[in-house]
Amino acid sequence: MPRRSDARQKMIDAARGLIRERGLNATAISDVLERSGAPKGSVYFHFPGGKAQLAVEAAASHAHQQVRMIDEFAAESSSAAELIGWYVDAGRDGMLASDFSRGCGLAPLVTEGPHDLEEVAGTSRRGFTEMVDRVAFHFVAFGIDRAAARSLADAVVAGVEGAMITARAFRSTSPWDAVKAALLAYEKTIR
Amino acid sequence: MPRRSDARQKMIDAARGLIRERGLNATAISDVLERSGAPKGSVYFHFPGGKAQLAVEAAASHAHQQVRMIDEFAAESSSAAELIGWYVDAGRDGMLASDFSRGCGLAPLVTEGPHDLEEVAGTSRRGFTEMVDRVAFHFVAFGIDRAAARSLADAVVAGVEGAMITARAFRSTSPWDAVKAALLAYEKTIR
Repeated sequence: MPRRSDARQKMIDAARGLIRERGLNATAISDVLERSGAPKGSVYFHFPGGKAQLAVEAAASHAHQQVRMIDEFAAESSSAAELIGWYVDAGRDGMLASDFSRGCGLAPLVTEGPHDLEEVAGTSRRGFTEMVDRVAFHFVAFGIDRAAARSLADAVVAGVEGAMITARAFRSTSPWDAVKAALLAYEKTIR
Repeated sequence: MPRRSDARQKMIDAARGLIRERGLNATAISDVLERSGAPKGSVYFHFPGGKAQLAVEAAASHAHQQVRMIDEFAAESSSAAELIGWYVDAGRDGMLASDFSRGCGLAPLVTEGPHDLEEVAGTSRRGFTEMVDRVAFHFVAFGIDRAAARSLADAVVAGVEGAMITARAFRSTSPWDAVKAALLAYEKTIR
């Protein structure tokens, strides 16, 4: 029997995966239980707020994982352009690995709004803010001035989000390559 | 009493608006009836395939409207850069006009997949293809070579899609401006 914290994390991971595949509304507690192998009684024990709490934690976990990836790629990079390359390619590779079945873990919280719970809208806002802030932080460290770094980071996160949608619709990586080229061209103009 | 064709179109328009606001799964037939003012009995008369057919027609109608907009902006433009400016600004202005309550009418068909009906996935694929094809067609007319026009058009549609998500999450137009700057920088490199 897994430790309590393992079961909790497994349910969050399962919810995150399901939200990326089918969105927020189509992710049922029963699907999360099935995928995570957690016992039925454990949902309200670990998530007293039920599905809304689970969804919020899953989306927050997705954002944290993105931020961690951004930090790792920044540590491997010696320029903003390199960081952009790593990050966009990771999105493309992840999409290919899932055979175009997985999108963003935050976007469904936006597109399936408005929500009864301010908490749900707040989670996507905070998640995207953390991502843009983190990308901009590294751009500044690579020598780009603050305002330009902010705009470039905004374009990076929006570009990746858009490629998540259209590449999945097309079942083609061409939007990823196009977005990367556009972001690298933008980076050159503000270097 | 509206003509039959009016009632049908009103239901499609209502479904399109609802999908843009709350996505596919949260758009109930009852909401479409309420918003369009159509009588209950008319759903299966006009849409024998029920909600799936209505959703598919609403999303297709969204794509057609985008293509029409792209053609209108192209007619007003004398360069690819101008067309990009018109199109991105129209997305930004529409989002502001809706107080950040409306996103894309096709994206929910992607993010709320997989679908039992191949028809639903096919509709978003066809819709985005029509949009990218149309933008690329005008870029070629403005003198850009075919392969570059295709990549720039892919970046335009992905960029606009991404801004639809993150700008809505932030309730800020900054992603629109950042995406426009990135697309214009890309356009300059392939002019």
